[in-house]
Amino acid sequence: MDALKHAIETNGTVLPGNILKVNSFLNHQIDPELMQQIGQSFADYFQKAGITKVLTVEASGIAPAVLTGLAMHLPVVFARKSKSLVVKDDVYSAKVYSYTKNTSNHIYVEKQFLDNTDRVLIIDDFLANGEATKGLIKITKAAGATVGGIGIVIEKTFQPGGAYLRDHDYDVLSLAKIASLDNQKVTFAD
Amino acid sequence: MDALKHAIETNGTVLPGNILKVNSFLNHQIDPELMQQIGQSFADYFQKAGITKVLTVEASGIAPAVLTGLAMHLPVVFARKSKSLVVKDDVYSAKVYSYTKNTSNHIYVEKQFLDNTDRVLIIDDFLANGEATKGLIKITKAAGATVGGIGIVIEKTFQPGGAYLRDHDYDVLSLAKIASLDNQKVTFAD
Repeated sequence: MDALKHAIETNGTVLPGNILKVNSFLNHQIDPELMQQIGQSFADYFQKAGITKVLTVEASGIAPAVLTGLAMHLPVVFARKSKSLVVKDDVYSAKVYSYTKNTSNHIYVEKQFLDNTDRVLIIDDFLANGEATKGLIKITKAAGATVGGIGIVIEKTFQPGGAYLRDHDYDVLSLAKIASLDNQKVTFAD
Repeated sequence: MDALKHAIETNGTVLPGNILKVNSFLNHQIDPELMQQIGQSFADYFQKAGITKVLTVEASGIAPAVLTGLAMHLPVVFARKSKSLVVKDDVYSAKVYSYTKNTSNHIYVEKQFLDNTDRVLIIDDFLANGEATKGLIKITKAAGATVGGIGIVIEKTFQPGGAYLRDHDYDVLSLAKIASLDNQKVTFAD
Protein backbone atom coordinates (compact mmCIF):
# COMPACT_ATOMS: atom_id res chain seq x y z
CA MET A 1 0.00 0.00 0.00
CA ASP A 2 1.79 3.05 -1.33
CA ALA A 3 0.48 5.68 1.10
CA LEU A 4 1.53 3.52 4.05
CA LYS A 5 4.99 2.83 2.62
CA HIS A 6 5.39 6.53 1.98
CA ALA A 7 4.42 7.31 5.59
CA ILE A 8 6.92 4.72 6.86
CA GLU A 9 9.70 6.11 4.68
CA THR A 10 8.92 9.73 5.49
CA ASN A 11 7.97 9.55 9.17
CA GLY A 12 9.24 6.22 10.51
CA THR A 13 12.38 6.04 12.61
CA VAL A 14 14.55 2.95 13.02
CA LEU A 15 15.92 2.43 16.51
CA PRO A 16 18.65 0.00 17.58
CA GLY A 17 17.28 -3.53 18.08
CA ASN A 18 15.34 -3.60 14.82
CA ILE A 19 12.60 -1.40 16.23
CA LEU A 20 10.60 0.66 13.78
CA LYS A 21 9.04 3.67 15.44
CA VAL A 22 5.89 4.78 13.63
CA ASN A 23 4.28 6.68 16.46
CA SER A 24 3.74 9.80 14.37
CA PHE A 25 0.92 8.17 12.37
CA LEU A 26 0.06 4.75 13.81
CA ASN A 27 0.52 4.10 17.49
CA HIS A 28 0.68 7.36 19.44
CA GLN A 29 -0.28 10.05 16.99
CA ILE A 30 -2.74 8.68 14.41
CA ASP A 31 -3.35 9.83 10.84
CA PRO A 32 -7.10 9.16 10.45
CA GLU A 33 -7.12 9.48 6.64
CA LEU A 34 -4.32 6.90 6.37
CA MET A 35 -6.25 4.63 8.76
CA GLN A 36 -9.29 4.98 6.51
CA GLN A 37 -7.24 3.87 3.50
CA ILE A 38 -5.84 0.98 5.55
CA GLY A 39 -9.34 -0.06 6.60
CA GLN A 40 -10.56 0.10 3.02
CA SER A 41 -7.61 -2.02 1.84
CA PHE A 42 -8.47 -4.75 4.37
CA ALA A 43 -12.16 -4.51 3.46
CA ASP A 44 -11.41 -4.87 -0.27
CA TYR A 45 -9.20 -7.91 0.24
CA PHE A 46 -11.40 -9.75 2.75
CA GLN A 47 -14.82 -8.73 1.39
CA LYS A 48 -15.65 -12.26 0.18
CA ALA A 49 -14.24 -14.07 3.22
CA GLY A 50 -17.58 -14.23 5.03
CA ILE A 51 -16.34 -12.14 7.96
CA THR A 52 -18.84 -11.38 10.74
CA LYS A 53 -16.61 -9.58 13.22
CA VAL A 54 -13.31 -7.67 13.39
CA LEU A 55 -11.03 -8.54 16.32
CA THR A 56 -7.97 -6.66 17.55
CA VAL A 57 -6.15 -5.90 20.79
CA GLU A 58 -5.83 -2.58 22.58
CA ALA A 59 -4.45 0.02 22.09
CA SER A 60 -2.68 0.41 18.73
CA GLY A 61 -4.91 -2.07 16.90
CA ILE A 62 -8.08 -0.10 17.60
CA ALA A 63 -7.71 2.64 14.97
CA PRO A 64 -7.08 0.35 11.95
CA ALA A 65 -9.66 -2.17 13.22
CA VAL A 66 -12.42 0.43 13.64
CA LEU A 67 -11.83 1.84 10.16
CA THR A 68 -11.90 -1.72 8.80
CA GLY A 69 -15.15 -2.41 10.62
CA LEU A 70 -16.60 0.82 9.26
CA ALA A 71 -15.66 -0.10 5.68
CA MET A 72 -17.07 -3.64 6.10
CA HIS A 73 -20.17 -2.61 8.15
CA LEU A 74 -19.15 -5.00 10.91
CA PRO A 75 -18.75 -4.72 14.68
CA VAL A 76 -15.25 -4.54 16.12
CA VAL A 77 -14.06 -6.17 19.33
CA PHE A 78 -10.81 -5.20 20.98
CA ALA A 79 -9.25 -7.60 23.45
CA ARG A 80 -8.36 -5.98 26.75
CA LYS A 81 -4.87 -6.27 28.25
CA SER A 82 -4.25 -7.15 31.85
CA LYS A 83 -1.00 -7.55 33.74
CA SER A 84 -2.49 -10.39 35.74
CA LEU A 85 -4.45 -13.41 34.64
CA VAL A 86 -8.13 -12.56 34.40
CA VAL A 87 -9.90 -15.46 36.07
CA LYS A 88 -13.56 -15.04 35.30
CA ASP A 89 -16.10 -17.44 33.90
CA ASP A 90 -17.26 -14.96 31.33
CA VAL A 91 -14.01 -14.28 29.44
CA TYR A 92 -11.75 -16.01 26.92
CA SER A 93 -8.11 -15.22 27.60
CA ALA A 94 -4.60 -15.81 26.29
CA LYS A 95 -1.11 -15.05 27.49
CA VAL A 96 0.94 -12.87 25.15
CA TYR A 97 4.68 -12.45 25.47
CA SER A 98 6.18 -9.20 24.18
CA TYR A 99 9.74 -9.57 22.88
CA THR A 100 10.06 -5.78 22.62
CA LYS A 101 9.17 -5.20 26.25
CA ASN A 102 10.29 -8.59 27.61
CA THR A 103 7.06 -8.91 29.58
CA SER A 104 3.91 -11.01 29.38
CA ASN A 105 0.41 -9.63 29.22
CA HIS A 106 -2.85 -11.44 29.44
CA ILE A 107 -5.46 -10.45 26.90
CA TYR A 108 -9.13 -11.28 27.22
CA VAL A 109 -12.47 -10.92 25.48
CA GLU A 110 -15.86 -11.26 27.18
CA LYS A 111 -17.60 -14.39 25.97
CA GLN A 112 -20.75 -12.54 24.92
CA PHE A 113 -18.84 -10.87 22.05
CA LEU A 114 -17.65 -14.02 20.21
CA ASP A 115 -19.46 -17.26 19.49
CA ASN A 116 -19.40 -20.25 17.18
CA THR A 117 -21.32 -18.44 14.44
CA ASP A 118 -18.53 -15.85 14.08
CA ARG A 119 -15.95 -15.72 11.33
CA VAL A 120 -13.30 -13.36 12.57
CA LEU A 121 -10.96 -10.95 10.79
CA ILE A 122 -7.98 -10.36 13.07
CA ILE A 123 -6.40 -6.92 12.65
CA ASP A 124 -3.18 -5.69 14.25
CA ASP A 125 -0.71 -2.89 13.75
CA PHE A 126 2.45 -5.05 13.75
CA LEU A 127 3.38 -8.64 12.98
CA ALA A 128 6.85 -9.65 14.11
CA ASN A 129 7.06 -12.80 16.22
CA GLY A 130 3.31 -13.18 16.00
CA GLU A 131 2.64 -13.49 19.72
CA ALA A 132 -0.31 -11.07 19.82
CA THR A 133 -1.86 -12.59 16.70
CA LYS A 134 -1.51 -16.10 18.13
CA GLY A 135 -3.23 -14.90 21.31
CA LEU A 136 -6.15 -13.54 19.26
CA ILE A 137 -6.34 -16.85 17.32
CA LYS A 138 -6.44 -18.75 20.61
CA ILE A 139 -9.30 -16.57 21.87
CA THR A 140 -11.19 -16.99 18.56
CA LYS A 141 -10.86 -20.77 18.74
CA ALA A 142 -11.84 -20.89 22.40
CA ALA A 143 -15.11 -19.21 21.39
CA GLY A 144 -15.70 -21.87 18.74
CA ALA A 145 -15.39 -19.16 16.09
CA THR A 146 -13.21 -19.43 12.97
CA VAL A 147 -10.45 -17.17 11.70
CA GLY A 148 -11.47 -15.84 8.29
CA GLY A 149 -8.35 -13.77 7.74
CA ILE A 150 -5.56 -11.75 9.31
CA GLY A 151 -4.87 -8.15 8.35
CA ILE A 152 -1.58 -6.59 9.43
CA VAL A 153 -0.55 -2.99 8.92
CA ILE A 154 3.23 -3.59 9.08
CA GLU A 155 4.89 -7.00 8.92
CA LYS A 156 8.56 -7.56 9.66
CA THR A 157 9.22 -10.47 7.31
CA PHE A 158 12.64 -11.05 8.88
CA GLN A 159 10.89 -12.22 12.03
CA PRO A 160 9.04 -15.55 12.13
CA GLY A 161 5.39 -14.59 12.80
CA GLY A 162 4.24 -14.21 9.20
CA ALA A 163 5.82 -17.48 8.02
CA TYR A 164 4.30 -19.33 10.97
CA LEU A 165 0.80 -18.04 10.21
CA ARG A 166 1.01 -18.75 6.46
CA ASP A 167 2.43 -22.24 7.17
CA HIS A 168 -0.70 -22.82 9.21
CA ASP A 169 -2.87 -21.81 6.23
CA TYR A 170 -4.09 -18.49 7.52
CA ASP A 171 -4.83 -15.88 4.86
CA VAL A 172 -2.55 -13.04 5.95
CA LEU A 173 -2.60 -9.65 4.24
CA SER A 174 0.21 -7.34 5.32
CA LEU A 175 -0.05 -3.86 3.85
CA ALA A 176 3.65 -3.10 4.26
CA LYS A 177 6.28 -5.83 4.44
CA ILE A 178 9.65 -4.90 5.83
CA ALA A 179 12.52 -7.20 4.90
CA SER A 180 15.20 -5.49 6.92
CA LEU A 181 15.89 -2.67 9.33
CA ASP A 182 19.65 -3.18 9.14
CA ASN A 183 21.86 -0.11 9.34
CA GLN A 184 18.82 1.76 10.67
CA LYS A 185 17.34 1.77 7.16
CA VAL A 186 13.91 0.49 6.09
CA THR A 187 14.08 -2.04 3.25
CA PHE A 188 10.70 -3.22 2.00
CA ALA A 189 10.22 -6.85 0.96
CA ASP A 190 8.52 -6.01 -2.34
CA MET B 1 -27.66 12.46 20.21
CA ASP B 2 -30.57 10.10 19.60
CA ALA B 3 -28.68 7.11 18.16
CA LEU B 4 -26.35 7.12 21.17
CA LYS B 5 -29.19 7.41 23.68
CA HIS B 6 -30.97 4.58 21.91
CA ALA B 7 -27.83 2.42 22.11
CA ILE B 8 -27.48 3.19 25.83
CA GLU B 9 -31.14 2.35 26.49
CA THR B 10 -31.09 -0.80 24.38
CA ASN B 11 -27.63 -2.20 25.11
CA GLY B 12 -26.36 -0.51 28.26
CA THR B 13 -26.41 -2.29 31.61
CA VAL B 14 -26.41 -0.58 34.99
CA LEU B 15 -24.31 -2.29 37.62
CA PRO B 16 -24.30 -1.62 41.36
CA GLY B 17 -22.14 1.39 42.27
CA ASN B 18 -23.60 3.63 39.56
CA ILE B 19 -21.60 1.92 36.85
CA LEU B 20 -22.98 2.03 33.33
CA LYS B 21 -21.66 -0.83 31.22
CA VAL B 22 -21.63 0.05 27.54
CA ASN B 23 -19.07 -2.46 26.40
CA SER B 24 -21.28 -3.82 23.63
CA PHE B 25 -20.81 -0.68 21.50
CA LEU B 26 -18.25 1.66 23.08
CA ASN B 27 -15.44 0.20 25.14
CA HIS B 28 -14.93 -3.48 24.38
CA GLN B 29 -17.07 -4.18 21.35
CA ILE B 30 -17.34 -1.09 19.15
CA ASP B 31 -20.10 -0.06 16.77
CA PRO B 32 -18.14 1.74 14.02
CA GLU B 33 -21.20 3.39 12.43
CA LEU B 34 -22.22 4.84 15.79
CA MET B 35 -18.63 6.04 16.31
CA GLN B 36 -18.81 7.75 12.92
CA GLN B 37 -21.99 9.58 13.94
CA ILE B 38 -20.34 10.52 17.24
CA GLY B 39 -17.28 11.85 15.43
CA GLN B 40 -19.45 13.86 13.05
CA SER B 41 -21.39 15.35 15.98
CA PHE B 42 -18.17 16.56 17.61
CA ALA B 43 -16.90 17.86 14.27
CA ASP B 44 -20.13 19.81 13.63
CA TYR B 45 -20.09 21.41 17.08
CA PHE B 46 -16.38 22.29 17.21
CA GLN B 47 -15.85 23.11 13.53
CA LYS B 48 -15.32 26.83 14.20
CA ALA B 49 -13.23 26.39 17.35
CA GLY B 50 -9.90 26.58 15.49
CA ILE B 51 -8.90 23.05 16.51
CA THR B 52 -5.56 21.76 15.22
CA LYS B 53 -5.37 18.39 16.99
CA VAL B 54 -7.61 15.83 18.68
CA LEU B 55 -6.34 14.43 21.99
CA THR B 56 -7.61 11.41 23.90
CA VAL B 57 -6.30 8.64 26.16
CA GLU B 58 -6.04 4.93 25.42
CA ALA B 59 -7.93 2.67 25.03
CA SER B 60 -11.65 3.52 24.94
CA GLY B 61 -11.13 7.08 23.75
CA ILE B 62 -9.38 6.03 20.57
CA ALA B 63 -12.41 5.01 18.48
CA PRO B 64 -14.47 8.19 19.00
CA ALA B 65 -11.33 10.35 18.72
CA VAL B 66 -10.20 8.80 15.42
CA LEU B 67 -13.64 9.22 13.86
CA THR B 68 -13.67 12.84 15.09
CA GLY B 69 -10.23 13.41 13.56
CA LEU B 70 -11.41 11.86 10.31
CA ALA B 71 -14.47 14.14 10.18
CA MET B 72 -12.34 17.21 10.99
CA HIS B 73 -9.33 16.23 8.83
CA LEU B 74 -7.06 16.53 11.85
CA PRO B 75 -4.41 14.31 13.45
CA VAL B 76 -5.29 12.44 16.63
CA VAL B 77 -2.97 11.84 19.57
CA PHE B 78 -3.77 9.29 22.24
CA ALA B 79 -2.03 9.58 25.59
CA ARG B 80 -0.42 6.37 26.72
CA LYS B 81 -1.09 4.87 30.14
CA SER B 82 1.64 3.61 32.41
CA LYS B 83 1.40 2.07 35.87
CA SER B 84 4.60 3.81 36.86
CA LEU B 85 5.68 7.39 36.42
CA VAL B 86 7.31 7.87 33.03
CA VAL B 87 10.40 9.89 33.72
CA LYS B 88 11.74 10.99 30.38
CA ASP B 89 12.75 14.37 29.08
CA ASP B 90 10.67 13.95 25.96
CA VAL B 91 7.19 13.43 27.46
CA TYR B 92 4.45 15.45 29.14
CA SER B 93 2.74 13.43 31.85
CA ALA B 94 -0.06 13.58 34.39
CA LYS B 95 -1.28 11.35 37.19
CA VAL B 96 -4.87 10.15 36.81
CA TYR B 97 -6.83 8.59 39.65
CA SER B 98 -9.59 6.15 38.69
CA TYR B 99 -12.47 6.10 41.18
CA THR B 100 -13.93 3.02 39.45
CA LYS B 101 -10.75 1.00 39.80
CA ASN B 102 -9.38 2.77 42.89
CA THR B 103 -5.94 2.96 41.27
CA SER B 104 -3.76 5.68 39.80
CA ASN B 105 -2.32 5.63 36.31
CA HIS B 106 0.17 7.93 34.74
CA ILE B 107 -0.63 9.13 31.26
CA TYR B 108 1.88 10.68 28.92
CA VAL B 109 2.29 12.21 25.48
CA GLU B 110 5.59 12.58 23.65
CA LYS B 111 6.52 16.24 23.40
CA GLN B 112 6.91 16.16 19.64
CA PHE B 113 3.14 15.70 19.21
CA LEU B 114 1.93 18.84 21.02
CA ASP B 115 3.29 22.36 20.96
CA ASN B 116 2.30 25.95 21.65
CA THR B 117 0.72 26.38 18.21
CA ASP B 118 -1.85 23.66 18.95
CA ARG B 119 -5.46 24.19 19.87
CA VAL B 120 -6.64 20.87 21.23
CA LEU B 121 -10.02 19.13 21.18
CA ILE B 122 -10.07 16.66 24.07
CA ILE B 123 -12.26 13.60 23.42
CA ASP B 124 -13.13 10.89 25.92
CA ASP B 125 -15.70 8.14 26.27
CA PHE B 126 -16.85 9.01 29.81
CA LEU B 127 -16.93 12.09 32.04
CA ALA B 128 -17.71 11.35 35.68
CA ASN B 129 -15.28 12.82 38.21
CA GLY B 130 -13.25 14.30 35.38
CA GLU B 131 -9.89 12.89 36.41
CA ALA B 132 -8.85 11.70 32.94
CA THR B 133 -9.99 14.95 31.32
CA LYS B 134 -8.08 17.00 33.89
CA GLY B 135 -4.99 14.92 33.12
CA LEU B 136 -5.34 15.67 29.41
CA ILE B 137 -5.81 19.38 30.18
CA LYS B 138 -2.64 19.32 32.29
CA ILE B 139 -0.69 17.73 29.44
CA THR B 140 -2.11 20.25 26.95
CA LYS B 141 -1.08 23.18 29.15
CA ALA B 142 2.35 21.72 29.82
CA ALA B 143 2.91 21.78 26.05
CA GLY B 144 1.93 25.46 25.92
CA ALA B 145 -1.10 24.47 23.82
CA THR B 146 -4.66 25.63 24.48
CA VAL B 147 -7.83 23.62 25.03
CA GLY B 148 -10.30 24.53 22.28
CA GLY B 149 -13.05 22.22 23.50
CA ILE B 150 -13.94 19.00 25.24
CA GLY B 151 -16.11 16.34 23.62
CA ILE B 152 -17.53 13.59 25.81
CA VAL B 153 -19.54 10.60 24.62
CA ILE B 154 -21.33 9.93 27.93
CA GLU B 155 -21.41 12.34 30.88
CA LYS B 156 -22.71 11.38 34.31
CA THR B 157 -24.10 14.76 35.39
CA PHE B 158 -24.62 13.48 38.94
CA GLN B 159 -20.84 13.35 39.34
CA PRO B 160 -18.79 16.54 39.60
CA GLY B 161 -16.51 16.46 36.52
CA GLY B 162 -18.79 18.30 34.08
CA ALA B 163 -19.66 21.09 36.51
CA TYR B 164 -15.98 21.57 37.34
CA LEU B 165 -15.00 21.89 33.68
CA ARG B 166 -17.85 24.29 32.80
CA ASP B 167 -17.09 26.39 35.91
CA HIS B 168 -13.59 26.71 34.54
CA ASP B 169 -14.98 28.00 31.22
CA TYR B 170 -14.25 24.99 29.08
CA ASP B 171 -16.65 24.39 26.21
CA VAL B 172 -17.87 20.87 26.97
CA LEU B 173 -20.15 18.98 24.60
CA SER B 174 -21.53 15.74 26.04
CA LEU B 175 -23.53 13.70 23.54
CA ALA B 176 -25.47 11.83 26.22
CA LYS B 177 -26.00 13.24 29.71
CA ILE B 178 -27.09 10.82 32.39
CA ALA B 179 -28.75 12.37 35.44
CA SER B 180 -29.15 9.19 37.43
CA LEU B 181 -28.45 5.47 37.47
CA ASP B 182 -30.54 4.92 40.59
CA ASN B 183 -32.50 1.68 40.86
CA GLN B 184 -30.31 0.33 38.03
CA LYS B 185 -32.21 2.50 35.56
CA VAL B 186 -30.77 5.06 33.11
CA THR B 187 -32.37 8.51 33.44
CA PHE B 188 -31.12 11.06 30.93
CA ALA B 189 -30.63 14.68 31.98
CA ASP B 190 -32.51 16.11 29.01
